[in-house]
Amino acid sequence: MELKNDLLLKALRQEKVERPPVWMMRQAGRYLPDYIRLREKYSFFERCQTPELATEITIQPVEQVGVDAAIIFSDILVVPQAMGLEVELLEGKGPFLPDPIKNINDLKRLRKPDVNESLGYVFDALKLTKKTLDGRVPLIGFAGAPWTLLCYMVQGKGSKTFDEARAFCFTQPETAHQLLQMITDTTIEYLRGQVRAGADAVQVFDSWGGLLSPVDFEEFSLRYIRQIISALKDVVPTILFAKGAWFALDSMSATGANALGIDWCVTAQQARKFAGNEITLQGNFDPARLLAPVPEIRKEVKKMISSFGVDRYIANLGHGILPNVPVDHARAFVDAVKEYKI
Amino acid sequence: MELKNDLLLKALRQEKVERPPVWMMRQAGRYLPDYIRLREKYSFFERCQTPELATEITIQPVEQVGVDAAIIFSDILVVPQAMGLEVELLEGKGPFLPDPIKNINDLKRLRKPDVNESLGYVFDALKLTKKTLDGRVPLIGFAGAPWTLLCYMVQGKGSKTFDEARAFCFTQPETAHQLLQMITDTTIEYLRGQVRAGADAVQVFDSWGGLLSPVDFEEFSLRYIRQIISALKDVVPTILFAKGAWFALDSMSATGANALGIDWCVTAQQARKFAGNEITLQGNFDPARLLAPVPEIRKEVKKMISSFGVDRYIANLGHGILPNVPVDHARAFVDAVKEYKI
Repeated sequence: MELKNDLLLKALRQEKVERPPVWMMRQAGRYLPDYIRLREKYSFFERCQTPELATEITIQPVEQVGVDAAIIFSDILVVPQAMGLEVELLEGKGPFLPDPIKNINDLKRLRKPDVNESLGYVFDALKLTKKTLDGRVPLIGFAGAPWTLLCYMVQGKGSKTFDEARAFCFTQPETAHQLLQMITDTTIEYLRGQVRAGADAVQVFDSWGGLLSPVDFEEFSLRYIRQIISALKDVVPTILFAKGAWFALDSMSATGANALGIDWCVTAQQARKFAGNEITLQGNFDPARLLAPVPEIRKEVKKMISSFGVDRYIANLGHGILPNVPVDHARAFVDAVKEYKI
Repeated sequence: MELKNDLLLKALRQEKVERPPVWMMRQAGRYLPDYIRLREKYSFFERCQTPELATEITIQPVEQVGVDAAIIFSDILVVPQAMGLEVELLEGKGPFLPDPIKNINDLKRLRKPDVNESLGYVFDALKLTKKTLDGRVPLIGFAGAPWTLLCYMVQGKGSKTFDEARAFCFTQPETAHQLLQMITDTTIEYLRGQVRAGADAVQVFDSWGGLLSPVDFEEFSLRYIRQIISALKDVVPTILFAKGAWFALDSMSATGANALGIDWCVTAQQARKFAGNEITLQGNFDPARLLAPVPEIRKEVKKMISSFGVDRYIANLGHGILPNVPVDHARAFVDAVKEYKI
């Protein structure tokens, strides 16, 4: 089916565009009143695992905020869950894994899942969303980077610094590498399945990449991300977002990813310099700035686009949208991008 | 009184040394069994406010781990407390401020304190520690950077991202600047008092500087840090540690600080390049790596010193020591620095 709006794919192919495409990380979610209503009726996993609900949630920001891409409603922790680890997602409390991985024996509790069996519900949601979107905008699939998934699988819950996960890598490096490879293998199968189900692009989220030193990021994160990008780059456009890992923008650029996501703690100039001028960049509005008055948002969006330039650029936030952002502020962000004139 | 070990001061004056000085952020604290025993008997504020206890805790790592400098046992939140805000420090739970600052009216609840009156207990602790140290090693005083203190004063507790604090700056910039200036004025008086009481050097901790974009860091953090460093640089050697703010190493270097602290997410080469070759650098061992086996710690310490070089360098961690580090691992870190041969 031909896309009526293929701005995102053009930007990912480094083609010239009239204005940058725009979407927002976590756009399908907690700041939208219609989402909150569904959250009151269905648990997180019911929303994920019921294709009709996941589709409805995925499409809400396309219809209500006017973004140029949909991203499937799901969570990065469905992969550890499919691998056999218990994952609870408590409303407002974040993830909780009651039996985290502590040593090599714990790896025995994990399996390499048949993704069609254990993650088929995500593929079904993608298929139904694709059909319901009817070509309005591209559909993005996603997965967590192996290091970020290891963080949760070892620490067992969210953390500012994931000290236990880093210590696990430093004290049991062989076990860590074995675990990272297991996650990588599953993730490749999972993302391939998402593409078969209709994803037009995929994003790999390394939310905790920036907690590692540059040397450790190469060893415990990028080495595995590279395998994932290599396996997918001829199949689908890829976006790689390693929050905080400004120091690796050059080596991430060399993975063959079509675009790199960047957070707000790097300027456009620095990011272009580090990543090289060929690759598309995605980001990097400070999510907290969406709470500023609307005229301020519009002004800052213009500044951001001028700094990155219109081509090889996808307007986005530097991290997920905050739950307390008024919907008209999110809309102002999107509108300001759409109205941008060179 | 002449110092028997003035390695730290030599490094801060950019003088040649035989080996780098070494100390550890949070060295006086929770990984030491003798500290834990005191914690069981006295509350946090009793430990801070009783000069005999603060002195004992401050000197423990000098005697038990062999560091080249003592840092006074206290907390950055004593300043908001002296300004009139209620601060609770709950064991194992972090800080809690029941009535945080939300708008301009809340500033009326704050005062510019007479530091001798409201923070005299810190000065008393410094005096007694200085006397008890008897010149064994230099004594470091410290304060939080205004932005980091604003984070807690607005958010009311610890946070991964301090979204509310950033949003406060974006939605009420004038109030934010007024608050930052009040904190700055108090901090300057407070640090001057610490120097009068015997501090041989002072460190300014901007633990959350790296949560701001480069432009916002300049506006909401560095502008105020600059005032503090200016007011103190002719009085005492200063160390400035803004965690995560690699992007500002050049402008922080230009403040006139004697040394910049750096975290483990920057390589020595990058840090030297960004900060310029004249200034002393302090850091940047990943605190989680102190959980690795001792031979591994020793090997990594050598690598670290070789990367930074012996001169204009203070060996330290990239953030505070973790509570679960065995004392002999901390000692191995210190010993490896002491045994370093060019």
